[in-house]
Amino acid sequence: MIKIAILGLGVVGGGVADILESEKSLIAKHFGVECEKFIEVKYVLDLRDSVGHGLDDRLTKSIDDILNDDEVSIVVETMGGLHPAYEFSLAALKKGKNVVTSNKAVVSAYGVELLGMAAEMGVSYLFEASVGGGIPIIRPLTACLCGERINSVSGILNGTTNYILSQMEKCGVSFKEALADAQAKGYAEKDPTADVSGADTCRKICILANIAYDIYITHEDICYNGIEDIEMADIECAELLGKRIKLLGVAKRNGDNIDAFVSPMLVGLDSPLSMVNDVFNAILVEGENVGELMFYGKGAGSLPTATAVVSDIIEAVDAPRRSMIWKNGSKDMISSEDGIISALYVRVNGTGISDKLISHFGDCKIVEHCGCTAILLPAKDQAAHLELLKSFDGEVLSVIKADK
Amino acid sequence: MIKIAILGLGVVGGGVADILESEKSLIAKHFGVECEKFIEVKYVLDLRDSVGHGLDDRLTKSIDDILNDDEVSIVVETMGGLHPAYEFSLAALKKGKNVVTSNKAVVSAYGVELLGMAAEMGVSYLFEASVGGGIPIIRPLTACLCGERINSVSGILNGTTNYILSQMEKCGVSFKEALADAQAKGYAEKDPTADVSGADTCRKICILANIAYDIYITHEDICYNGIEDIEMADIECAELLGKRIKLLGVAKRNGDNIDAFVSPMLVGLDSPLSMVNDVFNAILVEGENVGELMFYGKGAGSLPTATAVVSDIIEAVDAPRRSMIWKNGSKDMISSEDGIISALYVRVNGTGISDKLISHFGDCKIVEHCGCTAILLPAKDQAAHLELLKSFDGEVLSVIKADK
Repeated sequence: MIKIAILGLGVVGGGVADILESEKSLIAKHFGVECEKFIEVKYVLDLRDSVGHGLDDRLTKSIDDILNDDEVSIVVETMGGLHPAYEFSLAALKKGKNVVTSNKAVVSAYGVELLGMAAEMGVSYLFEASVGGGIPIIRPLTACLCGERINSVSGILNGTTNYILSQMEKCGVSFKEALADAQAKGYAEKDPTADVSGADTCRKICILANIAYDIYITHEDICYNGIEDIEMADIECAELLGKRIKLLGVAKRNGDNIDAFVSPMLVGLDSPLSMVNDVFNAILVEGENVGELMFYGKGAGSLPTATAVVSDIIEAVDAPRRSMIWKNGSKDMISSEDGIISALYVRVNGTGISDKLISHFGDCKIVEHCGCTAILLPAKDQAAHLELLKSFDGEVLSVIKADK
Repeated sequence: MIKIAILGLGVVGGGVADILESEKSLIAKHFGVECEKFIEVKYVLDLRDSVGHGLDDRLTKSIDDILNDDEVSIVVETMGGLHPAYEFSLAALKKGKNVVTSNKAVVSAYGVELLGMAAEMGVSYLFEASVGGGIPIIRPLTACLCGERINSVSGILNGTTNYILSQMEKCGVSFKEALADAQAKGYAEKDPTADVSGADTCRKICILANIAYDIYITHEDICYNGIEDIEMADIECAELLGKRIKLLGVAKRNGDNIDAFVSPMLVGLDSPLSMVNDVFNAILVEGENVGELMFYGKGAGSLPTATAVVSDIIEAVDAPRRSMIWKNGSKDMISSEDGIISALYVRVNGTGISDKLISHFGDCKIVEHCGCTAILLPAKDQAAHLELLKSFDGEVLSVIKADK
């Protein structure tokens, strides 16, 4: 029997405990063992005196109880936050325990060190749940596509913002109204900054980029923009241009460099990402040989995310010593903000100004809507676009990246 | 260095050889080795005297050369067809060699025996490429979702038929015209029967069902229908009903049974499968805890399929002795055709007969188009539907399953 400890029995940790109980016979069967339960929660580290899930008798407030118990071979870190999640994970790895986490902040900030320690100690540090919730994406990238040159990985990586954008589009409500609705439904936190600012998406695309390109970047290395400034007029103009606005994390090859950023983007209806609505997430991977792949599912929620954690627990038992290591210091490949080439959507005040716009910006797709004119500038480098915008004699209301 | 043999250097086998060459440094890097090439093709079994790909000097016509060479640890079977692909695979496994295949016919017909032999010999029998071409689906199902109770697995598993249906919808052409176009573009074979009849999809959904439900069924155990009888009027009526027609392989839980079949189906626009067009494939997995997942990509083609084969070659090196075994004889769970519950689309001759239809079939969604009337019957058991249809006093032109 495998004994594990769960650090933090919140939304995800509680879901892990529930699945290990409800699916215990399926899991035992996977390991080909004839017993009632093959994976047992021996400890729960939590500051509360009661955590429910029938696990109050396993409660401890001391990480040392767990670290010093040689029977515990897997530590599940579902605490959230950087500290002490990072310190506890590092200590568990140093003690030769496998660590499984859903904590994207820790993976993004300390992944290189934790993966290095895991490799040194011959154990696993696994984090399928840190990106895309229940969607299998980390293992497909590392295992199924390890012989594939990845040209681009991009995705809708945050369910909250995708729900807000979907509601604006479907119901014609403002960003503020859609956010309030998302908060009422429990899809957005009271302080929604991490989601709507793009910071959460940024951590996730960095993790994917590190795997896809064998580099090591964190959220400090790339630019991110959120959806706070998206107006209904933009959603409607986008529709008239045959596009939908999605918040994307993007990391794509551009020659020897990687263009990586988080930004709302106008996505064409021919992209499968344009069809991903509500709280669903999707990751689009474009490989040199395999072409376009998409992985779609629920990017958050207790049980979906816990499913990914449980699959990592099973992997840690099945195949310990996964040897992925991120390189430290290879941030040089990351393009500067100016070097990123992207089409641009620009909405300006006024109508009947198509000729003026074309004479200034050159030939481009133009629509008029609600007293505004929106144009789609073909892909140029960022600096050239900004020069054009700066010198435009008129009021620019919105500027958003577009896929083409 | 790992030495492999490729049996059959056709479309897929040639792609495998090309990727092993073009991505050799990426692959060597994955294994952390400093050499020019880590996986080398030592033999190619092919009846031709020249096969190109720079491998003519490795050609042999005798399987014994390969079986008797202890240096060869992996045999790649990309011959296609049942015989002698099955016999060669079995012989290689018996010799303690890992076998990797793209051959869905062999996996579907002989999977239980070949997996059993692999387990007995402590080697792997891997077949990621047999379903969904380059889409990672076998490994996500077996590795990422092994602790997840699967409620349903369904998908667009054949690119040829999806292309034909997409063309009919997009261009308003008949089945025959769309098929001719697919043949001209190389998407359909001269004899397209295996694709358009649903037989190919049937083999693939059986493989997925065997993994998802730990059963063992082959194409002989379930019913399949193809798309030969789909008319433009059906495509158009479906659109008026807010649906698209897709050829689906389906295996879903129905109490203690599994409803498994292949059929064209009317799929609602709210299903992500409805957005999968042209030669793309997609597999929708619904898990008890994880909810809805979709895996999307190119289901055929030399390099996409070869990518999946290469990922299996790498897995065979990384983690030999994968222990999946299908149970023999557990076909009892498969629902009889009559027991399958499905909504039905029925198109009948004539218009102005809504009242008559409602009085016969009960309350249902109705549209009129081009001299026909189409109705959507809610899900009842098949037998009840058929009784209703038999007793209908009017000309029934089409009957197609619908998702709801």
